[in-house]
Amino acid sequence: MEKIQYDVLEKVNTPDDLKKLSCDELKTLCEEIRAYIIDVLANNPGHLASGLGTVELSVALHYVFNTPDDKLVWDVGHQAYPHKILTGRKNLFHTIRTYKGISGFPKMEESEYDSFGTGHSSTSISAALGMAMASRLQGNNTRQHIAVIGDGSMTGGMAFEGLNHAGDSKANILVILNDNGIAIDKSVGALSHYLTTITTSSAYNRLKNKIWDFYGEGKGKKHKNFFRKIGLITKSALVKQSNLFEALNFRYFGPIDGHDVENLIKILGKLKDIQGPKLLHIVTRKGKGLEEAEKNPIAYHAPGLFDANTGKQVVNDSGNKPLRYQDVFGYTIVELAEQNEKILGITPAMPTGCSLNIMMDKMPHRAFDVGIAEQHAVTLAAGMAAQGMVPFCNIYSSFMQRAYDQVIHDVALQNLDVVFCLDRGGLVGEDGATHHGVFDYAYFRPIPNITIASPLDEHELRNMMYTAQLGGKGAFVIRYPRGGCVNLDWKNPMQEIAIGKGRCLKEGDSIAILSIGHIGNAALEAASIAETKGINVAVYDMRFLKPLDEDLIQQVASKYTDIITIENGALKGGLGSAVAEVVADSNLKVNVHRMGIPDYFVAHGSLKELHKECQIDTDAMVSMIMKIATKQ
Amino acid sequence: MEKIQYDVLEKVNTPDDLKKLSCDELKTLCEEIRAYIIDVLANNPGHLASGLGTVELSVALHYVFNTPDDKLVWDVGHQAYPHKILTGRKNLFHTIRTYKGISGFPKMEESEYDSFGTGHSSTSISAALGMAMASRLQGNNTRQHIAVIGDGSMTGGMAFEGLNHAGDSKANILVILNDNGIAIDKSVGALSHYLTTITTSSAYNRLKNKIWDFYGEGKGKKHKNFFRKIGLITKSALVKQSNLFEALNFRYFGPIDGHDVENLIKILGKLKDIQGPKLLHIVTRKGKGLEEAEKNPIAYHAPGLFDANTGKQVVNDSGNKPLRYQDVFGYTIVELAEQNEKILGITPAMPTGCSLNIMMDKMPHRAFDVGIAEQHAVTLAAGMAAQGMVPFCNIYSSFMQRAYDQVIHDVALQNLDVVFCLDRGGLVGEDGATHHGVFDYAYFRPIPNITIASPLDEHELRNMMYTAQLGGKGAFVIRYPRGGCVNLDWKNPMQEIAIGKGRCLKEGDSIAILSIGHIGNAALEAASIAETKGINVAVYDMRFLKPLDEDLIQQVASKYTDIITIENGALKGGLGSAVAEVVADSNLKVNVHRMGIPDYFVAHGSLKELHKECQIDTDAMVSMIMKIATKQ
Repeated sequence: MEKIQYDVLEKVNTPDDLKKLSCDELKTLCEEIRAYIIDVLANNPGHLASGLGTVELSVALHYVFNTPDDKLVWDVGHQAYPHKILTGRKNLFHTIRTYKGISGFPKMEESEYDSFGTGHSSTSISAALGMAMASRLQGNNTRQHIAVIGDGSMTGGMAFEGLNHAGDSKANILVILNDNGIAIDKSVGALSHYLTTITTSSAYNRLKNKIWDFYGEGKGKKHKNFFRKIGLITKSALVKQSNLFEALNFRYFGPIDGHDVENLIKILGKLKDIQGPKLLHIVTRKGKGLEEAEKNPIAYHAPGLFDANTGKQVVNDSGNKPLRYQDVFGYTIVELAEQNEKILGITPAMPTGCSLNIMMDKMPHRAFDVGIAEQHAVTLAAGMAAQGMVPFCNIYSSFMQRAYDQVIHDVALQNLDVVFCLDRGGLVGEDGATHHGVFDYAYFRPIPNITIASPLDEHELRNMMYTAQLGGKGAFVIRYPRGGCVNLDWKNPMQEIAIGKGRCLKEGDSIAILSIGHIGNAALEAASIAETKGINVAVYDMRFLKPLDEDLIQQVASKYTDIITIENGALKGGLGSAVAEVVADSNLKVNVHRMGIPDYFVAHGSLKELHKECQIDTDAMVSMIMKIATKQ
Repeated sequence: MEKIQYDVLEKVNTPDDLKKLSCDELKTLCEEIRAYIIDVLANNPGHLASGLGTVELSVALHYVFNTPDDKLVWDVGHQAYPHKILTGRKNLFHTIRTYKGISGFPKMEESEYDSFGTGHSSTSISAALGMAMASRLQGNNTRQHIAVIGDGSMTGGMAFEGLNHAGDSKANILVILNDNGIAIDKSVGALSHYLTTITTSSAYNRLKNKIWDFYGEGKGKKHKNFFRKIGLITKSALVKQSNLFEALNFRYFGPIDGHDVENLIKILGKLKDIQGPKLLHIVTRKGKGLEEAEKNPIAYHAPGLFDANTGKQVVNDSGNKPLRYQDVFGYTIVELAEQNEKILGITPAMPTGCSLNIMMDKMPHRAFDVGIAEQHAVTLAAGMAAQGMVPFCNIYSSFMQRAYDQVIHDVALQNLDVVFCLDRGGLVGEDGATHHGVFDYAYFRPIPNITIASPLDEHELRNMMYTAQLGGKGAFVIRYPRGGCVNLDWKNPMQEIAIGKGRCLKEGDSIAILSIGHIGNAALEAASIAETKGINVAVYDMRFLKPLDEDLIQQVASKYTDIITIENGALKGGLGSAVAEVVADSNLKVNVHRMGIPDYFVAHGSLKELHKECQIDTDAMVSMIMKIATKQ
């Protein structure tokens, strides 16, 4: 691979350096940043395509605004890679998403330029508005507060809540709608069509071009005239209502080309002087500058390893490796839906990530991507269930936090048959603190009328899905992790399993491990290792956190002196907690040792590193076994 | 009071009866329903003003549509009282909100006419869409699915998520926007202004009147012409975008008078024949027909007892009764804010209910009603905190479920100083299952970086608020119940209390009660009663669920043989669970008896009745004490 020259980028470490550059140098800088991102991420996997789409915007924002005093919030944060490179993290960029390296998302503790941490979608407008209102109260009426939000994130309800409030405020907030027609998968919903209509309607562009003509001349008196004219235009009720964002009392500007850095700088410079809530609509291309990524932005959202020159993804020879849980879900829901016509599939904007795309391809009328809208996804499922269907709603564990109320209020309370497939349960690795799905066991457990299951392997996943779709069981959660399954032959004949019944995987002498979910495989491994040291440990797969198999716990307590509970979830409130409750309530005479995720936000790193840090890997289990055995 | 004649209402028990009535009789029926609601609620307190605003709409909907086969979802459900009267529950109406009586909200198990239960805001569009999509898949293309949603509820983000998806579907969904400018308090936000602009803009009405002219004549061929013309109109991109709802691909109709039953019937009859997503904007008056309620819809949202003739509220001589917790919050935040200029107040649409209105009146620039938008409220607070402010975000416990992710992702993870005042913690009484705030202890406990406090009385509430506003403590939850405080003299001099430290209220012999929050007062009472029976029970007020005072628990365990934990919250995952964890982790030799809300959805009734049912009242505690004492 030929060595790339970074002549301009070499001179740029912070936004101050940026401000010394000529217009031509800025354009070169954009090309170099793009090349740098491609070069680094080719060998250090990360979120590629989003950042390639925001290179010019990042340069323009830091050129025009006075960051970090002006506040910049990147919604979700995948798009913030160029921002990181421009704000002191160029030389750490290769450590992105690695253990102890920089985060893949904006993070307040990482840099003063990261005004607000993100990761989950649609928070940026609320956060920027909060800052803007605070600035006003602190007597600062010039500081700017900028939320950069994708068209996909704009469908999340809280973005609308933020717009609704901001439009009613006089706060200095600039929302930049980064419209690329793509979330992770293709954007869906009426808003997406609406934005397409705007960006393709010639009538609309004519109207707006008039405004931009003013901008082109806007200096001194003309500048003031411009604002007056803007004022005049927005005073007309009909024109004011001619745009969704104007209906919410935002001053709307655009759409403009988000890859023209010169024009972006000109326009942002003007917007800087306009008080109050305003929205700039820019059109960008996800994956810009890497042909393969432009052609296939879904695959190149996070492509893994790829060739920096050709852009081709490096295909790992998956050879004889087990499938991933998400794929077994994807194939199995199709298999079940072919037999049970009540089954429907729902994903809030994660069809590729959760593999519901397999069903969407095969049964487009029965599987739906509802956009980034977890709350809606759950209540939509409840509505379907109220009409006798059995929807499978697949939501990543950490995003399910968004729909917590809907699970309680719309599904569980009404005892409706909705199956929640919780992908990415437990630690997720490189995405870090915002994405770990570690609270689910604890937050679901207090909800009445809910079944919480977690499979040891993909055969169990299939059996649980089979059992859930039989219906009549109300809210049914099936929680499984990111990553690979256990067996090469994943396609077992499915069978119903008894709700609330655990099982013995292995008998032992005096110590018993009670586990839930995939981590039980590590427990079996730990038991094998212990056996080589002469200690015979029992392993029980609880299968269900709720209803909890209290009979089994009583049996175990009567047979063993020590119970180790192990879960890939928060220690407070989860399986260990549930077992401690049973032990207390039934006054069982057994020692309980709880292993799980400790009470702090775990950062990013590989799963292996994080399991070790959290002391939930096989080594930690063996240590625990030996400690107990030594004491006995 | 003169006896009211219900000549028409007497003949109406179900929608079928309605369909036999003449137009004049329908008008009379509306008057009678209104009188009936006023008559019954005057002596049986309930939600008055919302239902008075939807009498004509309810009559028209059940007259035009084929309920219960056509599906009707009432958002929030306060407005569903006339619907209940018209659907077989007229004679049970006086039992509304009472123990074992009918619910104050639509409830699937109560009536087949309640297609979907509600209580929390903004769910109706998603639910109706789910039903509509299910109907289509089941081959039913004529069934109608109607969501009636207030302008206040429309600001909730999930309503927007629902619109965004519905507009992209071909589902038979009719959204009726019941626009009265009022949620519980006055509607706020840009959408509210926008709706006012629509309903007052003569230009807009002219455009729409043309459409309604077609409706007036619409029969046979003219009918078809009408649709064709509508089609033509909506094909023009600019006109299509002239309305916020049309931008989301809804066919928009209105605004029309929601109290003209004849016109409503005519228009709904036409809309019934239009396929796909459509929105009818009706303008109603909250409290319609009761002068006092029309004048003051906020006070008459749920006025308590009132005189059916004059409408005057019956003022209970509160005499020498302690204040309510919410009022102590309201006065105290003003007192603190006068000293600490960093303090801000935020409520999502509950200024009167939570008493933030006291601060909003005194310090309008520092206290904000952000509309029904819990998610936004929390992240807005996080944004303010990121800029150095100390926002107090007051959200009812059950509504906080809506913002669970934001508490984790935007506040706790970033360790920002946001104080969450959780009003209505624990059982709330007459509002029932949707509104009980019983899961909060359990769902907050697994979150790292969070302090969870719960005051025994209003002096403690004030001390906790004082302590929280000092800052530097990250997310700080203060959870208190609905209802009255303990002391007549509420205004103690405030002082800082040690985070994570419980206290001994009373020493004892062998049994110790560990309580959290206001329920500790019942524990003290139980201990007094036990003392009269010769049993000396200790009472500890834990004050903090997190950090939990583990040292204190160890001390208690070493001194007493039995611990009773008592909390007004879910048994699974709360205080009792946390104590069981400590007992297990530290291998303490003490018996633990856990009292709290059992694992089912508790229905409505008085607090007294529900506390008894859930076995968390003084009697139940005394029984528990005696049972333990007898065994010892």
